[in-house]
Amino acid sequence: MSGERKVTITAIAREAGVSVPTVSRVVNGRSDVAPETRAKVEDLLRQYGYRRRAHAPGDRAALLDLVFNDLDSPWAVEIIRGVEEVAHDAGVGTVVSAIHDRAGAARQWMTNLRARASDGVIMVTSVLEPLLHKELHRLGVPLVVVDPAGAQDLHAPTVGATNWAGGLAATEHLLGLGHRRIGFIEGPKRLLCSRARLDGYRAALESAGVAVDERLVVPGDFYHESGFHGCRKLLGLDEPPTAVFASSDQMAMGAMEALRQHGLRVPQDVSVVGFDDLPEMRWSAPPLTTVRQPLADMGKMAARTVLRQARGEELDTPRLELATELIVRASTAPPAAG
Amino acid sequence: MSGERKVTITAIAREAGVSVPTVSRVVNGRSDVAPETRAKVEDLLRQYGYRRRAHAPGDRAALLDLVFNDLDSPWAVEIIRGVEEVAHDAGVGTVVSAIHDRAGAARQWMTNLRARASDGVIMVTSVLEPLLHKELHRLGVPLVVVDPAGAQDLHAPTVGATNWAGGLAATEHLLGLGHRRIGFIEGPKRLLCSRARLDGYRAALESAGVAVDERLVVPGDFYHESGFHGCRKLLGLDEPPTAVFASSDQMAMGAMEALRQHGLRVPQDVSVVGFDDLPEMRWSAPPLTTVRQPLADMGKMAARTVLRQARGEELDTPRLELATELIVRASTAPPAAG
Repeated sequence: MSGERKVTITAIAREAGVSVPTVSRVVNGRSDVAPETRAKVEDLLRQYGYRRRAHAPGDRAALLDLVFNDLDSPWAVEIIRGVEEVAHDAGVGTVVSAIHDRAGAARQWMTNLRARASDGVIMVTSVLEPLLHKELHRLGVPLVVVDPAGAQDLHAPTVGATNWAGGLAATEHLLGLGHRRIGFIEGPKRLLCSRARLDGYRAALESAGVAVDERLVVPGDFYHESGFHGCRKLLGLDEPPTAVFASSDQMAMGAMEALRQHGLRVPQDVSVVGFDDLPEMRWSAPPLTTVRQPLADMGKMAARTVLRQARGEELDTPRLELATELIVRASTAPPAAG
Repeated sequence: MSGERKVTITAIAREAGVSVPTVSRVVNGRSDVAPETRAKVEDLLRQYGYRRRAHAPGDRAALLDLVFNDLDSPWAVEIIRGVEEVAHDAGVGTVVSAIHDRAGAARQWMTNLRARASDGVIMVTSVLEPLLHKELHRLGVPLVVVDPAGAQDLHAPTVGATNWAGGLAATEHLLGLGHRRIGFIEGPKRLLCSRARLDGYRAALESAGVAVDERLVVPGDFYHESGFHGCRKLLGLDEPPTAVFASSDQMAMGAMEALRQHGLRVPQDVSVVGFDDLPEMRWSAPPLTTVRQPLADMGKMAARTVLRQARGEELDTPRLELATELIVRASTAPPAAG
């Protein structure tokens, strides 16, 4: 096979009237070949049925794998955008997958990963079973976790946002406006980021000397529907909150719909704060006060980290949290007198 | 190099106490190896520094490239989701790229594509210069275009939605409610889908015997901001419309914000219809009446088509339009009397 290929390259070089290294450059996808020369050589390669798929051992596939649990939220596209930008500049392709919390899908993904010889893996809040974690390690494929789900992710470098500080800032904002009964709609309990946001909320209340009323903390899963139901639950309390901190923007949208259905106005009757600052939140009705997560920057940082590892470079730190920022818009106001 | 590898595989087989084909199966990422055996072999492969990156000529890279112009809209994630689902099931990785309408980025992408020997390309409303189109063809890499931007895309199989029928249905819905002055906010003029939606709008008006007033057609680019400005322009007319058909959901959100700022209620004062049915539109205020594009299904169909081409199969048809569907929610009502 190897001999056959050499003959073909030599023959092609002769026929194209160029050097063998030039043909090699074309075969290897290098850019330092004049367009007309490339066109001529590629025509011949095609004519001879030469398969460009021939990777020599040690060749870099120049791919990194970006794995989500589900591709069903606008925030996924923000992370993809950041990863793709850095990877593209490095000449690396971004392979996007979803494993849907299913062992079979994760197993299949691992098989595909092995076949494509990816240079690195970025996992986004998806939980990989320990066996697959070990397998990645055994394969020597570097791993970076964005928004670590749980403790097992901490064996790899992680890139997150300052979720605790974000939870604190949002709650302090509502306290500063005069709210004392502040509802909180949680994210999935299995995720560390959910826990950190809730802890930030509690810390702000305690610092302000406001007792935490556990009835004001209702479960959610970051999706719209759970924000809607969580808010309805809060409105059903004997003493409902004057403000709702939904720990994702999508839940904040659901909460606003529940308030509208109850005939309550935002922010005159009830204030609402979200978490994420998805681009469309500027256009919600009213525009949403929320905690900005730098999702695209988190994607960029994760891509830089995994590429650095793939090159065998040292990391400055295995735990990185990018700063969140409170964005005040029109969904928060002082509580109604009364 | 080749000799070295053979020795290593044989040595590893001996040391692991398994057959050479079993080691090969592990090297090639096949799943038909018992987990303990795989683990043992992989440990040895790693120990001997064996590079799994060795693709034999003719090996399939098992990748397809999904190319957007920009990764900045929630609808991108819908398409990615559909493509990924089909590709994943076929054991194929989805490489997501953005070329930002920049020749340099497109050129770089082409270089990367060649290096990774992708099995096929799906372009989404992004315009590839003719030279790159030719190059893809020369490389023998199958191409499918989702939402063809212009005529040059029609050299490849395309997957779109019935944009014209969607434009017609939305406008007929508003006419049926009694609206006669219906504003239209256009998409980018360079895209065929924009043109088809506008033509559907015009066809509905003409069928109903309503003269098309060109002042009611204002430019936009599918993004929020342009919907906001387009709607303001419509509201500034001597005789403003009683309904606005924004030809994307994001523009509909922008239009609703402009209406709110003018103190106008949706749908009591002005009706609004969008186009896309992004998942979050159920949660807009009020929930948006819109034309559903089956974006994930379009992604699935594009992936199936490109994989079929990659296998050398015949296509049933090179032009596929999946049906759009009008989803009536709460943003449309009969015009206010008077």
